[in-house]
Amino acid sequence: MDRRSFLTRASIGGAAAAAGTVLAAPAIAQEAPQITWRMASSFPKSLDTIYGGGEEMAERLAEATDGRFQIQVFSAGEIVPGLDAINATGDGTVECSHSVGYYNWGRDPAFACGADLPFTFSARAKNAYNYHGGGIDRYNEFLDQYNLISYPGGNTGVQMGGWYRREINSLADLQGLKMRIPGLSGRVLEKLGVVPQQIAGGDIYPSLERGTIDAAEWVGPYDDIKLGFQRVAPYYYYPGFWEGGPTVSFFVNKGQWDQLPEGYKSVFRTCAQAVDQNMLAKYDYLNPTALKELVATGAQLRSFSEEILEASFQAAQEVYAEVSQENESFKTQYEAMLQFRDDWYLYQQTAEYTFDTFMMIQQRNGGLVSEG
Amino acid sequence: MDRRSFLTRASIGGAAAAAGTVLAAPAIAQEAPQITWRMASSFPKSLDTIYGGGEEMAERLAEATDGRFQIQVFSAGEIVPGLDAINATGDGTVECSHSVGYYNWGRDPAFACGADLPFTFSARAKNAYNYHGGGIDRYNEFLDQYNLISYPGGNTGVQMGGWYRREINSLADLQGLKMRIPGLSGRVLEKLGVVPQQIAGGDIYPSLERGTIDAAEWVGPYDDIKLGFQRVAPYYYYPGFWEGGPTVSFFVNKGQWDQLPEGYKSVFRTCAQAVDQNMLAKYDYLNPTALKELVATGAQLRSFSEEILEASFQAAQEVYAEVSQENESFKTQYEAMLQFRDDWYLYQQTAEYTFDTFMMIQQRNGGLVSEG
Repeated sequence: MDRRSFLTRASIGGAAAAAGTVLAAPAIAQEAPQITWRMASSFPKSLDTIYGGGEEMAERLAEATDGRFQIQVFSAGEIVPGLDAINATGDGTVECSHSVGYYNWGRDPAFACGADLPFTFSARAKNAYNYHGGGIDRYNEFLDQYNLISYPGGNTGVQMGGWYRREINSLADLQGLKMRIPGLSGRVLEKLGVVPQQIAGGDIYPSLERGTIDAAEWVGPYDDIKLGFQRVAPYYYYPGFWEGGPTVSFFVNKGQWDQLPEGYKSVFRTCAQAVDQNMLAKYDYLNPTALKELVATGAQLRSFSEEILEASFQAAQEVYAEVSQENESFKTQYEAMLQFRDDWYLYQQTAEYTFDTFMMIQQRNGGLVSEG
Repeated sequence: MDRRSFLTRASIGGAAAAAGTVLAAPAIAQEAPQITWRMASSFPKSLDTIYGGGEEMAERLAEATDGRFQIQVFSAGEIVPGLDAINATGDGTVECSHSVGYYNWGRDPAFACGADLPFTFSARAKNAYNYHGGGIDRYNEFLDQYNLISYPGGNTGVQMGGWYRREINSLADLQGLKMRIPGLSGRVLEKLGVVPQQIAGGDIYPSLERGTIDAAEWVGPYDDIKLGFQRVAPYYYYPGFWEGGPTVSFFVNKGQWDQLPEGYKSVFRTCAQAVDQNMLAKYDYLNPTALKELVATGAQLRSFSEEILEASFQAAQEVYAEVSQENESFKTQYEAMLQFRDDWYLYQQTAEYTFDTFMMIQQRNGGLVSEG
């Protein structure tokens, strides 16, 4: 607190009648200006968990600032199409957005680095990398050229590998498979013979039903069940190795951000981090029940075979090598992930994995529901 | 926002000279009072990650409120001993504390339910239960009788199973083992023949060195390495099944809490949730490197045997049955965890576990450090 603001605040009291009228008003305006931003969400309201993260951000921020920092959230299509939310933020159409970096993959592949890359991190590893491994700063160095700054604001946990009209047992089954899968993930699967399709969420169900496509990836049980895919493409594969722990992000127009008082920047970051954790916690609470319901209504749960996972991993390495050669920002960010990724999955082999494995064994033995 | 505060804020403007002096000052005092609280941390400053969570809370809160909501953090022993921090909050010695509920196990076993119980949740499952499974509210219903309210404010992830002077291969090796392990966990291991010892952090090393005790559990690699246990009790076991995802909590004196304006309550909760995520992310970033260093300086990494884990699980069930019979609050909270625990570990067997397992295989094959 600087001396001037201290004096100003001290002067707001019953005694300071003369000074009060003049000094109190500008001091309030200076320290806590009234701000109203528009946020373009990339998500429809029907995805209450992921779209809800934007609403939750607005609520937390308004409550923290006694209503002085307001954000109005608009769902996909209300101001701009969902996939344009990030660009609309950079060009100043809106002050901020709630989106996933890889939606902008086509404009610059390095946008994906702040969201998720195939075979990189689980949600916990992603958070460690983002908040303590320099991930946020590294992403923002890249975003600066697009007049953007970004903070994590949500995570879905590892996604599912999607819905298939027939079983996928071997690499041969991927040949010519028409699959709705966007961006970088599509490019990886393309190397294995898949024919990636770009289809908006609302069009997936009829396309699967008519057989225009053979498969589609969406999110995970809680979101997938709303669309009823199990009725038209019952084979539900896991894991969605292209999204081990995708970060959903708040993007802010850099010019708008730079004008914020430091206190508002801080509270924005704090609210975003609370939303980041809370979205994952919400998915984690809702997904288990949704998965049980999906199976009860016809979903056939399947794990991708070792052969498919191995081949996909190798294909991802090829894609990384190609993109890194073309794009320095991508290369810098991707390579910064590698050492921590190796350390993390070494460490994971000890306490966490052993604890989880033991608990899953108890689950299979029926030991978790009662007091034994 | 109620009508009165809207009118009041609207009146703070250049034009409202006459009303301004009278109305502006009380409105500011009412909406954003200056508050200074003392926080008793249960942790020494040397545990920078867990103690640091309290400091981080104070910083976030001060920045969010433009310095109006201040918390002064005191390390263990500065105002009260670390283990008394929660009670000192309830009796009003301090306004708030940063502690772990199970430290108060001796006063009432149900205190442990807000922290961790053996063989319950990993950190992600714990967060899902806390924030979306009613865990926070349920804990606060219990805490009310102690004049307390609490919000999660940190997590260490699954802890390690501690340091042993000799190898522990079978249940026979646990007979008569003098182990530093507090509270509920000690009661579980006591059923297997362990003799639990209550020893403060600073006394563990000399006790292990002299052989006064045979084993000691502390936290995990990043905290353990500071104390150098590998030099005197080199066998480092995992997992710490008694702490799969321990929640560190902020406790607030209920009378103080009730006096807070709603906006301050909201920003307190938001800051706490950001700290909750951030502590886990920090441990997750630091632990992998620390574990490698421990092994390089003599730690012998070992997994508890299936036999020991199974027997400990059964012993824990016996303890739960005993405590539930004596304590209704414990029973209510524990039983509320069971259904979600079962659903979670069923769900975990699909995408998350398969993704993690595949990534660990790649790690072992050396595939994660380079572009393949």
